Amino acid sequence: MARSPFEWIDEQARARSRAGLVRTLRPRPADSELLDLAGNDYLGLARHPEVTEGAARAARTWGGGATGSRLVSGSTELHAELERELAEFCGFESALVFSSGYAANLAAVTALAPHGSLIVSDAGNHASLIDGCRLARGTTQVVAHADPDAVRKALDTRTGPAIVVSDTVFSVDGDAAPLTALAAACREAGEPGESGASRKSGESGRPGAALVLDDAHGLGVIGDGGRGAAWAAGLAGAPDVVATVTLSKSLGSQGGAVLGPAHVIDHLVNAARTFIFDTGLAPAAAGAALAALRLLREEPERAARARAVAISLYERLTAEGLEAVRPDAAVVSVRAPSPEQALRWAAECRAAGLAVGCFRPPSVPDGISRLRLTARADLTEGQLDRAVGVIIEARR
Amino acid sequence: MARSPFEWIDEQARARSRAGLVRTLRPRPADSELLDLAGNDYLGLARHPEVTEGAARAARTWGGGATGSRLVSGSTELHAELERELAEFCGFESALVFSSGYAANLAAVTALAPHGSLIVSDAGNHASLIDGCRLARGTTQVVAHADPDAVRKALDTRTGPAIVVSDTVFSVDGDAAPLTALAAACREAGEPGESGASRKSGESGRPGAALVLDDAHGLGVIGDGGRGAAWAAGLAGAPDVVATVTLSKSLGSQGGAVLGPAHVIDHLVNAARTFIFDTGLAPAAAGAALAALRLLREEPERAARARAVAISLYERLTAEGLEAVRPDAAVVSVRAPSPEQALRWAAECRAAGLAVGCFRPPSVPDGISRLRLTARADLTEGQLDRAVGVIIEARR
Ligand SMILES: Cc1ncc(COP(=O)(O)O)c(C=O)c1O
Ligand SMILES: Cc1ncc(COP(=O)(O)O)c(C=O)c1O
Repeated sequence: MARSPFEWIDEQARARSRAGLVRTLRPRPADSELLDLAGNDYLGLARHPEVTEGAARAARTWGGGATGSRLVSGSTELHAELERELAEFCGFESALVFSSGYAANLAAVTALAPHGSLIVSDAGNHASLIDGCRLARGTTQVVAHADPDAVRKALDTRTGPAIVVSDTVFSVDGDAAPLTALAAACREAGEPGESGASRKSGESGRPGAALVLDDAHGLGVIGDGGRGAAWAAGLAGAPDVVATVTLSKSLGSQGGAVLGPAHVIDHLVNAARTFIFDTGLAPAAAGAALAALRLLREEPERAARARAVAISLYERLTAEGLEAVRPDAAVVSVRAPSPEQALRWAAECRAAGLAVGCFRPPSVPDGISRLRLTARADLTEGQLDRAVGVIIEARR
Repeated sequence: MARSPFEWIDEQARARSRAGLVRTLRPRPADSELLDLAGNDYLGLARHPEVTEGAARAARTWGGGATGSRLVSGSTELHAELERELAEFCGFESALVFSSGYAANLAAVTALAPHGSLIVSDAGNHASLIDGCRLARGTTQVVAHADPDAVRKALDTRTGPAIVVSDTVFSVDGDAAPLTALAAACREAGEPGESGASRKSGESGRPGAALVLDDAHGLGVIGDGGRGAAWAAGLAGAPDVVATVTLSKSLGSQGGAVLGPAHVIDHLVNAARTFIFDTGLAPAAAGAALAALRLLREEPERAARARAVAISLYERLTAEGLEAVRPDAAVVSVRAPSPEQALRWAAECRAAGLAVGCFRPPSVPDGISRLRLTARADLTEGQLDRAVGVIIEARR
């Protein structure tokens, strides 16, 4: 018998098994009775009838798929409508919709970091930003987590264009990035230089760095009525700021978008491989996201409620002695002593009717295992009581 | 005024404009009167009522989005059902569904090419496979298009595991890869070696290379009732073959999947970043793809019809003196003398009511501009006549 080319896979599988790190899929039924604190449906909109009707109507009107790249047959007026309303809501000039938030991040980083440029990337950034850095032609410097001084130092080394890339709310711990300080570091990097050459060129020194923010966990939760972290920091619409968002969390759908100045968005249309060579977002997903966005506009209190639920969860759990990071958005991350205990803890919660996320290596860059809880705007006080009780009880 | 960090973008935009290579989006209305030979809806299923109902029903039952990673809250029984039926239809042991075909390709290549491995990649491969090669830890050797001897030579240089990666039907020219010869090259690379060491180990030489096939344009069109190119070549279900498919072309939806041996699929669940760190495919897209797959099973003649329409288009256009590649699936690629003429030709077609694809640099690796026509199983003879007439007329 010929040997399998995948023998190395079986070795890795055995190692994973010995380490207790095997992941398996657990498909859920439509009528699950679990109380869900694991998903990212922060506003409780994924199953809202207007959102699901938005999906259904779009599929009926536009078809099951976009049928091609957005540059060929895949752009519908529905995509354009979603782009207009997203840009307006978040306070940016233009928006471009992608098939996922992951694809939007790959696009933003690769298209904005050409050969000869510098990418300064926070050590806690999401996998999709990291992959964007690895695909980009520019050079990446990873800097310490949430450290504007480190960003400043990294920017000092640049010799061409530069971008600073950061999650606004980090997906593992739910902590916020220091956006104001990051923007200042980007802009200071652009102060007029001392050199005669740059004076003579008639321009006011070299340009600053651009700031690229992944607002996956900020949209719908942070800022005035959920307009996002860039809006809250007064950075939305600035000529040197680009934000990416996902339609798959607060907007209860699938897809992503890049928001920014119109000339930057035009550049992405022409240069971003995950835009040019990918089929457009399915109409149903665009329709669901658009319906959710309109609901959020009509019911802006959903954003504040999601934040309040998160703070309440945090306060009640830490009052019981658990170690957690004070949430800046809707993600509450509770430390577990070990991967095994995290797994057991999550399993106990599930047995008691509560779904929670369990983050273990290698999904956590620092090796610390966590229960990851997500606040939802539609959780009742009774459900919150129950969730807290189950988590405390399951820890024992 | 501070200088913009995006000045270099404006320079690129001016260069693009001078070269006549600016791309702009042209959103289409729901009731477009254009005859569509541009999209990849090969079987005419994207707007089939059972497909759009499949999307609508899934959204109502499961919500607008999957709410999280497939490993957290994002796996539903609908995803599992789609995976089972896809694997069975295509003749593979297991399947794993992704948010796009692009993400599926990134996953397959990166997870199957670890540090120390060799990736042998066809020069005509799709952008998503190329990005997969660039993200993977293994080393890539790009080989001449559709050249099994070049693959053989490249495999000779390997020192660890190896994969050979190829589109089954190339997206630009619509030509088929030499699958039987590629599989032979992969397997020959695994013949027992001469060295005493490998004999002593008790194993029959070193393993062959694995074959990773992107069947984006094969599924639904090639093979018995559209079971795909791997099936047609007798490679489906082989222990050393992995296929990727997209749900966005023949299945009229959005999403992608990787098909292969169960232990390989388990490995992807544990190792593929675009699986682990991406929100699951939206239920509506899964529902639409499942409905399309069931239609295809009931109406297998759709596949043969798509191929016949392509051949007919090809024969009639070349009879009029146009230069085209004989189609192996549903893509008919017609050469244009220059990017400008391709653009003008496509515009003339559009003015006459026919949408065709126009591929120009930098989207074509060889710099040759083309009209790209797609055959659809549901085109009538009258529509075909009209399409051919318009294309010929518009060329003048
Ligand atoms: C911070 C962050 N960015 C990007 C993404 C990717 O978005 P999507 O899942 O919509 O592809 C996620 C989550 O999946 C995320 O947490
Ligand atoms: C050969 C090939 N592979 C992969 C893809 C990506 O699939 P998707 O558009 O579903 O992401 C495409 C087309 O878009 C393609 O033509």
